[in-house]
Amino acid sequence: MHVLVIGAAGMIGRKLVARLVADGGLGGRKLGRLSLVDVVAPEMPTGIEGRAWAADLSASGEAACMVGTRPDVIFHLAAIVSGEAEADFDKGYRINLDGTRFLFEAIRQEGLRNPGYAPRVVFTSSIAVFGAPFPEAIGDEFFTTPLTSYGTQKAIGELLLADYSRRGFFDGIGIRLPTICIRPGTPNKAASGFFSSILREPLAGQPAVLPVPDTVMHWHASPRAAVGFLVHAATLDTQPLGARRNLTMPGLAATVAEQIEALRRVAGDKAVALIRREPDETVARIVAGWPRRFEAKRAEALGFKAEKTFDEIIRAHVEDELGGRVA
Amino acid sequence: MHVLVIGAAGMIGRKLVARLVADGGLGGRKLGRLSLVDVVAPEMPTGIEGRAWAADLSASGEAACMVGTRPDVIFHLAAIVSGEAEADFDKGYRINLDGTRFLFEAIRQEGLRNPGYAPRVVFTSSIAVFGAPFPEAIGDEFFTTPLTSYGTQKAIGELLLADYSRRGFFDGIGIRLPTICIRPGTPNKAASGFFSSILREPLAGQPAVLPVPDTVMHWHASPRAAVGFLVHAATLDTQPLGARRNLTMPGLAATVAEQIEALRRVAGDKAVALIRREPDETVARIVAGWPRRFEAKRAEALGFKAEKTFDEIIRAHVEDELGGRVA
Repeated sequence: MHVLVIGAAGMIGRKLVARLVADGGLGGRKLGRLSLVDVVAPEMPTGIEGRAWAADLSASGEAACMVGTRPDVIFHLAAIVSGEAEADFDKGYRINLDGTRFLFEAIRQEGLRNPGYAPRVVFTSSIAVFGAPFPEAIGDEFFTTPLTSYGTQKAIGELLLADYSRRGFFDGIGIRLPTICIRPGTPNKAASGFFSSILREPLAGQPAVLPVPDTVMHWHASPRAAVGFLVHAATLDTQPLGARRNLTMPGLAATVAEQIEALRRVAGDKAVALIRREPDETVARIVAGWPRRFEAKRAEALGFKAEKTFDEIIRAHVEDELGGRVA
Repeated sequence: MHVLVIGAAGMIGRKLVARLVADGGLGGRKLGRLSLVDVVAPEMPTGIEGRAWAADLSASGEAACMVGTRPDVIFHLAAIVSGEAEADFDKGYRINLDGTRFLFEAIRQEGLRNPGYAPRVVFTSSIAVFGAPFPEAIGDEFFTTPLTSYGTQKAIGELLLADYSRRGFFDGIGIRLPTICIRPGTPNKAASGFFSSILREPLAGQPAVLPVPDTVMHWHASPRAAVGFLVHAATLDTQPLGARRNLTMPGLAATVAEQIEALRRVAGDKAVALIRREPDETVARIVAGWPRRFEAKRAEALGFKAEKTFDEIIRAHVEDELGGRVA
């Protein structure tokens, strides 16, 4: 089978590609060809047929080029992130809305030229489609009233995905990822960055800053779980979804205090001692508007699985990023 | 003040214009200028300054032309209706999605050129943004999972409206109209047409066909109430809306049996006798997927008002369309 990954150079994209290559297939079908695209050329794994190239999904003709070889499964992970989409209104709409629509439309046009072509499309959405105020736990039928342009663009992508799927142009599924924790790499300036850095840095023997109170609760899943969601979304039977093609993924609701206690259990007091409390009103205010907890019943019933404890989330990081060793 | 009505030649558009002219203003401000646009040139009322012209909102430059004179209030009523948007995928997306986005973007661009320009925008959405299965009564926080391309396009318009409002580009409000009953005019082929025709035709002494069982319940408001929603939306304080700019309008949940009993009270047994039952499985199946009842608490709290009984809906029609006389 032929798999196209758009956004293959990003953190999740790279992990997804590694998983596909390691598995050698998807849903019991052999991986015959990989097409990898991002704004910078993704790395092409060895030992597999395919191509990796740089392209801007929102540029004329690029989507048609990606789809012209008729991949069986298309992972659409490409997006301008929240902060940038908020800072650059035009760019956010161009990449996140126009790019997504161009992709969907290119698939439809390919199907009009080659009747019967209707690939599985896995679209990464986000819990940013929701906006405060929230109920204590957000159910599967809660409305999408995003408070960012990024969330708006993702919510529109979900609607398009559902309509194109309903019309039979492709077989789409949208998955709303929790905040990914622990993100590997260096600290970034995202307001959510501290959720990862207060664990990642101490696990590597480095100090970290906690800008919010210990009582802050948020919704998490590991990168490993996120890749699992993508693979499951690409292979599950979409019949039970009906017309409701977008799903909140399961995750783990945890307070910062619970994160820290998990860190203590995995890496000891000396790791916890590396966290410095430095309250930041701005970050605290932003985070206060974010979802705390979901009841992702539909996704769970469909077999999507996330971690059940923060210890598991930390151990996944230690295994996948640190070679099993804690500093 | 300067009011722009896009979609001014349609049934609701014409009634809105007549109301604005009769009132001589909007929210206590004198109506100084009217700009009326539709795909066919709307009729320009006498005695008021302004212009009426034909234009396609989705054609290049047209939205900028409409907005270039900086109207204070913009009513956006233009749309390809449900059946046509389903039959012609490209046309529906071009008019209902691109046209709406071009309008919103033209307003933003006008504001970038003339800082401080941020008009009130009233967008007519629809209960078609919702899709079955439904709870017994649909609350204000129920999610939008449309089952038509039209509903998808309206839901996307809502999201864009909320984001452009949140960013301060305009002061928008989206109102989801109930099924309008009694629609004046001749019977049309819309699946919902019978809700009006089983009342309108007998009131005029003409026979009508009822294709569904008497037990079918649906959500209604009169054209007069719809115009009232629009005027209220144009003048209310949007501050209490926060970022949640789209509202399900109040309406009346009534079964076909209740509609018929109201007809009997207003126009007698001879009117009811003109209704011929002719079951149509296709229509019945379509209607079964439609919302039955809403709890429009937010809109009611904000002062939006619909009819409380079907007798009122019928009397509004007799007064507004039949000069007070029943056949």
